[in-house]
Amino acid sequence: MLVSDYFGMQGAPLGGSKATAFVDDMRRWFSQPNGPSAHEVMHCKDEAQRPTTVVVAYWTSMSDHAAWTTASAWRTWWDDPARVTEDVGYWREHLACPYDRHETIYSDPKYRIGLGRTPDAEIVPITTNGYFGAARDRIPLSAIDELKGATIPSLPSVRRSVAGRRVSVVVPNNLTILRSGQFWHESEPEQAEDYERNLQVKLDRGMDYLEGNPDSGCLYLRRMTNLSDTGEPRRETSIQAVFGSLAALESWSSSHETHLAIYRHAIAMKRQYGDRRDVVTWHELFVMPGGTLFEYLNCADGTGLLPFAAHLEPSGDITANPAIG
Amino acid sequence: MLVSDYFGMQGAPLGGSKATAFVDDMRRWFSQPNGPSAHEVMHCKDEAQRPTTVVVAYWTSMSDHAAWTTASAWRTWWDDPARVTEDVGYWREHLACPYDRHETIYSDPKYRIGLGRTPDAEIVPITTNGYFGAARDRIPLSAIDELKGATIPSLPSVRRSVAGRRVSVVVPNNLTILRSGQFWHESEPEQAEDYERNLQVKLDRGMDYLEGNPDSGCLYLRRMTNLSDTGEPRRETSIQAVFGSLAALESWSSSHETHLAIYRHAIAMKRQYGDRRDVVTWHELFVMPGGTLFEYLNCADGTGLLPFAAHLEPSGDITANPAIG
Repeated sequence: MLVSDYFGMQGAPLGGSKATAFVDDMRRWFSQPNGPSAHEVMHCKDEAQRPTTVVVAYWTSMSDHAAWTTASAWRTWWDDPARVTEDVGYWREHLACPYDRHETIYSDPKYRIGLGRTPDAEIVPITTNGYFGAARDRIPLSAIDELKGATIPSLPSVRRSVAGRRVSVVVPNNLTILRSGQFWHESEPEQAEDYERNLQVKLDRGMDYLEGNPDSGCLYLRRMTNLSDTGEPRRETSIQAVFGSLAALESWSSSHETHLAIYRHAIAMKRQYGDRRDVVTWHELFVMPGGTLFEYLNCADGTGLLPFAAHLEPSGDITANPAIG
Repeated sequence: MLVSDYFGMQGAPLGGSKATAFVDDMRRWFSQPNGPSAHEVMHCKDEAQRPTTVVVAYWTSMSDHAAWTTASAWRTWWDDPARVTEDVGYWREHLACPYDRHETIYSDPKYRIGLGRTPDAEIVPITTNGYFGAARDRIPLSAIDELKGATIPSLPSVRRSVAGRRVSVVVPNNLTILRSGQFWHESEPEQAEDYERNLQVKLDRGMDYLEGNPDSGCLYLRRMTNLSDTGEPRRETSIQAVFGSLAALESWSSSHETHLAIYRHAIAMKRQYGDRRDVVTWHELFVMPGGTLFEYLNCADGTGLLPFAAHLEPSGDITANPAIG
């Protein structure tokens, strides 16, 4: 099982003391036994339009992950009732995914990020790329499973506020979570300029389309910027995009003009620069087995999976076993 | 992923109209699209000392399971608030387990039960048996993972009642769930008599020990009797035993007198009867990845994982997405 946990702090501005302390704390807790083997710190304006710090952490062992979530100081902090009475919200989007429901790809073998930074990750050449349907073909389970998504209402209805509450949402089966990244921090000026003037603009148009069209099957997305160790934005971004099904993501990428423009430009630049190409694009994709939880603490309405939950009555209590995985 | 869901109705006597209707309903719902590919109906006195009907159902596709739990008539029935106002309780213990966290073994290749009844299940000879540690060796993941259990308090503290409530407990990582079965329904009289007079007695002593000694790491167990299509008890039983860790189960089986007595008697009978041996013993074992849910509706205090949950405050609301896997 691969684990990719997204820890969010919602509502604190970049560079402020609250966000800085959150990152410092997470880093300190990660260094305790069984912490993640890779992590990154990012910033974004989230789907509720709040400034948000996102820390993504990777484990390649469920047992290590369980030991850390059980025994680290993070657990005590997370369980503290004070977490829902601050002027910020928190989330943990816990992705635990079998190997055969995952695929990843890099435009260049020399750079590593995301799950690729865990020790023993190997980057190897592949031939299942360059055609629509390749991402599905790279997911081993697709050989025997259509990976059909669940029916998720595309228009969230009005719900009562979740502020001040600790709410867990059960992940639907085959929920499809993409992290798609761009790295031009070390690019030569000409390529960096092309990225910022051309590719980034096309990318933003694509994301604007997905955000504005729930019928696309995109439930929410976050345009995140990586931060340096000292908290400065890097020329490195990634988009966390959550789709109701793999088919919805495929439909957008293979047929929608906003994605075709991104795709064509990236290929044209690779052709133009050849081995000199130094803007790296990559992604990692998880088609989730259903049944685990995304947790939201004092979050804004509209955050993450909250709008797509069936009901938020307190009738269904969840019990956080201290031994949760 | 393998799915084994235990559906329980707690508090209705065997053969009564309530239990009979439950079984009829479950069978009708199972026959709807994407229903399980095998199921069994059983009866027991559960860990809260109530008469309980247990229906266990097996899927070998998470997608089929998700489609059924989403779209079948069972979902509407299960979500109905009326489920917590009846004079019975209900549970669903949902086991979704990757192949590499599972092992199974049969004393005889001719009989099938449990997961072995799903289409395309194959029974093959193995050599990883006949020594202590063999079960672990049959679990592929054990090659790279100790499968350490979580720390679970062995003595449940006093909690407020969960009657009338819908409570979900998060499954701890590496929770170990054994279904250990015995089939003597078609045995010749001599072997059936030996089973009932000798092996069954030793088995009961072993279960008595585990039930009475929380320090063994056994959290709860149920001694279930299979029922025929018309609801009559068969000469077929199985024990669902839930341990905090695989190591706890191993410790009991390799060193405790109550298990050694079972083990020795089974081997002696196999030696005595050889190919004529017609009492079949078998088990299937799931070492769970943590993070999924066991659900209890209007259950008695002390049922299933309830006593081992950290807290039951309604602060942590769980939201049952209609698309739950």
